[in-house]
Amino acid sequence: MSTSCKTVLASRVSASFRDQIHKDIQERQICPKLVGFLANEDPAAKKYAEWTAKTCAETGVAFELRKVDKQDLEEKITEANDDKDVNGIMVYYPVFGGKQDAYLQNCVSELKDVEGLCHKFVHNVYHNVRYMDEEETMKCIIPCTPLAVVKILEYIGVYNSVLPYGNRLYGRTITVINRSEIVGRPLAAMLSNDGAKVYSVDVNGIQLFTRGSGIKLKAHKVEDIDEKLEDVVPKSDVVITGVPTPKYKLPTSLLKDGVVAINFSSCANFEDDVKSRASIFVPSVGKVTVAMLERNLLRLHDYQHNLREKQSS
Amino acid sequence: MSTSCKTVLASRVSASFRDQIHKDIQERQICPKLVGFLANEDPAAKKYAEWTAKTCAETGVAFELRKVDKQDLEEKITEANDDKDVNGIMVYYPVFGGKQDAYLQNCVSELKDVEGLCHKFVHNVYHNVRYMDEEETMKCIIPCTPLAVVKILEYIGVYNSVLPYGNRLYGRTITVINRSEIVGRPLAAMLSNDGAKVYSVDVNGIQLFTRGSGIKLKAHKVEDIDEKLEDVVPKSDVVITGVPTPKYKLPTSLLKDGVVAINFSSCANFEDDVKSRASIFVPSVGKVTVAMLERNLLRLHDYQHNLREKQSS
Repeated sequence: MSTSCKTVLASRVSASFRDQIHKDIQERQICPKLVGFLANEDPAAKKYAEWTAKTCAETGVAFELRKVDKQDLEEKITEANDDKDVNGIMVYYPVFGGKQDAYLQNCVSELKDVEGLCHKFVHNVYHNVRYMDEEETMKCIIPCTPLAVVKILEYIGVYNSVLPYGNRLYGRTITVINRSEIVGRPLAAMLSNDGAKVYSVDVNGIQLFTRGSGIKLKAHKVEDIDEKLEDVVPKSDVVITGVPTPKYKLPTSLLKDGVVAINFSSCANFEDDVKSRASIFVPSVGKVTVAMLERNLLRLHDYQHNLREKQSS
Repeated sequence: MSTSCKTVLASRVSASFRDQIHKDIQERQICPKLVGFLANEDPAAKKYAEWTAKTCAETGVAFELRKVDKQDLEEKITEANDDKDVNGIMVYYPVFGGKQDAYLQNCVSELKDVEGLCHKFVHNVYHNVRYMDEEETMKCIIPCTPLAVVKILEYIGVYNSVLPYGNRLYGRTITVINRSEIVGRPLAAMLSNDGAKVYSVDVNGIQLFTRGSGIKLKAHKVEDIDEKLEDVVPKSDVVITGVPTPKYKLPTSLLKDGVVAINFSSCANFEDDVKSRASIFVPSVGKVTVAMLERNLLRLHDYQHNLREKQSS
């Protein structure tokens, strides 16, 4: 097996973000509070929650895990929305699964939605709307995992900083295997908005996301295409996987030599020999996702603080 | 087979609503416009759309069917949101299916959402919030199909008008077979808010909706229960079905003698001999749903008109 592949760990990418967050919290002597709701019985979710708590503690974020019955979850979210001591809210999904979880995502107040999953934030990602308010004082929250993938792509040089901002993926072909509403679809839109040609793959077929012709409100264009995974993966400079099952393995033989391979699934979606083909391999993104959660939390903390000051003055 | 079962057709229930709407439109000399977006290739959806057009024409509502590519749908919805000549917007689902359709439901402006499917309206149904605005000048839109079922239950005397408003289902046990986010779950909540004991059934199990203890914001209570369809249907005074497949048939043998049987699926979910057990049988609700669409359209037309007057004064 070739040894020329560079493995980049998420901890390496997240380090500078975490240092910045830690410094910011110390210098300003603030203590932003994040509440995580756990309403499923998944031991993996519990473990992830405990690890989030530990990671947050290291940077000075107060993380509180609240275990609740799923039937009480909406009420508990509403209470946290109204509690001025809570700066951010996250939920360990799935709870009910399906559209009822989409309903719950919209129950979290926009001002506390650290995960960026409410309709307004997801909609704004698709339409390149940068601010929450008309006065453009509050930047939108971007869904954490897609944002983490973008930060990784910047870190490993896939974004070309020689090109102008907003066009730094121009010339890149990227395949994203996952088209969920909370990761794969917004990620494909974000990458195409930055100039990439993106093949978005799921069980229902393949779509091609491109920047399109820049119509008002519609910054990217989506077409159903009649190609298969076997057609699009070999054409891709970057392949990003997010299939939530240990059974799924993308055949290394499909990968172009020198590909950049990134896996955001909690399961390993690339085969063990992926490094024989890849130039850069990022086996997981979780630590960057948590850094983005903390970054979003700090923003929301400041928005809440500013709004309260405005109201009391 | 017993002949004592009364079959109540949706056309009968919808007649008085339609007369009222027609009269209102004529007297006020208005012409509210409803735009329906068809973005799937389902011939049944097309037929239903054509039938909606005909029904609307009879009451004086201008219905325009717009056939669009599903990839353009969001942009077309946004255009209709911004077009002051359009008073109401509806979409023939499924388009993409799953959570992407939930995303589209939230792309329709609240002020034009005749189907009542955006998060705010569905959330308000669960929490018994009656008005869209703090000043309480604009009543919320209620999702059409659940509202149609409630109107049918009122028409056939399941709501007992001797009891005080808000408690008129007290003492009734109702099974709802469907727990979708757009019909079954809001319907179960609405019925329990009015005092019924509701068994909500789907493939994942059975939940019991009751009014609960009237906690602020939480007008109903939901519990997972360890019972089967065979346990809950025989206890039910009313059985409401909405399973979207011709293969599903609820065994008549499970029904209590004298049950009220209502089917809101486009497929017949009761067996042919349902009338041997039922006291009242409502084979479909579609015509009442369209009447509710028109009723919601008139409200939204007036809200838009009032808001424009306010802005120009």
